[in-house]
Amino acid sequence: MSGTARTLLYGVGLGPGAPDLMTVRAREIILCADRLVHFCKRGRRGNARTTADTIVAPDPAREIELAFPVTTEASVGEPDYDGPIATFYEAAAEQLAAEMQAGRTLAVLCDGDPFFYGSFMHLWRRLSPRFPTEVVPGVTGMTGAWGEAGAPITWGDDVMTVLPGTLPEAELARRLADTDAAVIMKLGRNLPKVRRALTAAGLAGRAIYVERATMARQVVARLADKTDDEAPYFAMVLVPGEGRRL
Amino acid sequence: MSGTARTLLYGVGLGPGAPDLMTVRAREIILCADRLVHFCKRGRRGNARTTADTIVAPDPAREIELAFPVTTEASVGEPDYDGPIATFYEAAAEQLAAEMQAGRTLAVLCDGDPFFYGSFMHLWRRLSPRFPTEVVPGVTGMTGAWGEAGAPITWGDDVMTVLPGTLPEAELARRLADTDAAVIMKLGRNLPKVRRALTAAGLAGRAIYVERATMARQVVARLADKTDDEAPYFAMVLVPGEGRRL
Repeated sequence: MSGTARTLLYGVGLGPGAPDLMTVRAREIILCADRLVHFCKRGRRGNARTTADTIVAPDPAREIELAFPVTTEASVGEPDYDGPIATFYEAAAEQLAAEMQAGRTLAVLCDGDPFFYGSFMHLWRRLSPRFPTEVVPGVTGMTGAWGEAGAPITWGDDVMTVLPGTLPEAELARRLADTDAAVIMKLGRNLPKVRRALTAAGLAGRAIYVERATMARQVVARLADKTDDEAPYFAMVLVPGEGRRL
Repeated sequence: MSGTARTLLYGVGLGPGAPDLMTVRAREIILCADRLVHFCKRGRRGNARTTADTIVAPDPAREIELAFPVTTEASVGEPDYDGPIATFYEAAAEQLAAEMQAGRTLAVLCDGDPFFYGSFMHLWRRLSPRFPTEVVPGVTGMTGAWGEAGAPITWGDDVMTVLPGTLPEAELARRLADTDAAVIMKLGRNLPKVRRALTAAGLAGRAIYVERATMARQVVARLADKTDDEAPYFAMVLVPGEGRRL
């Protein structure tokens, strides 16, 4: 990917949230890059930037903040969301291109892994054809979650399915009934629907709810024991596989 | 998981193979643990132990090697495999229990992540009820593979399915035809079957073959361009999702 020219663009996976769960390579790159790039909601600090706080102190001259124009006010697929978001990625890519044309190296800080449901991918597809790029893989949020839950996710020949909680209820139920292990991402306001789909698939008893895995204020609970339906977007549900024990 | 007592057993994910893709926490634990435990084939060094070579030099007094009695000579599900393997895990667990009863901390070195198709899980289920245990999540091999392949795996609301190549051909084809993104693990001698299943599902053109991702002698190729059917067990096939671009 990086070719022979000096890498200018790094997509750096910072892992699930605990600072020491970033890789050694990620740590080195964010120490050395000319600019640290991070996504955030308007007026709030991005989670990935916070993960890096123990390594690099805030330094306005070195940081490029990319603030999403919309987040939860509008929904994906609606013109009020897709239009502004595409314009935002276009403008962000041009801003970063100008930095690289000036010879500066950029580390884009990514929650989890850059290539697993990541915002970085929308920059990557615009910029990697033009600038030498390296992706530094990270521990995904789901990997942190099943570790903290004490829940080995796949045994033997288990099939694992990763499902966005945004899918329709009937599709969630159908897919859950047809897998050995599952991870349901993007929970948030989809939790009541996900709970119904798990029940329909006969999996509600095995489901584990995990919120803020590896971070402060982590929550791990049997989903059956979680009585409310409040969940942040980055919460998830795990259904551990029950495959071959040796 | 670890409770209040001092952790004695660490399952340490070392990541996909490049030494600097282990986490900062993994590095600290393998530097400090009293004993380094690693799985291997008889007469060969384990891959995870090799990954740790840049951090800890070989030291026979500090290492515990767990050599599988059988690997590819027999197949999972056959009595010649399951019997000896179960006996092996029992004996290994008792050996490690004796070390911990003597107060020593153990770092079990795991390829990728300890809880994702890991041998460690068979020790964990025997030992974690008896000894304070911590699982250190790692970058999975598949995460390293899609990073090196320049292949963002899931976009938007893509469903991802992880399939062991050991499954029957018809089941592989059915599941591949019903997912947005896929990872096929445990390739080895299953490659011809996997290739047929991908073709049946109409995905052969999108499939990427990855071998030894992030390590020396890495191979990344379009599966269509790989003319032979030789593949090590730890090779995999990726089918990247084609979900929402913004």
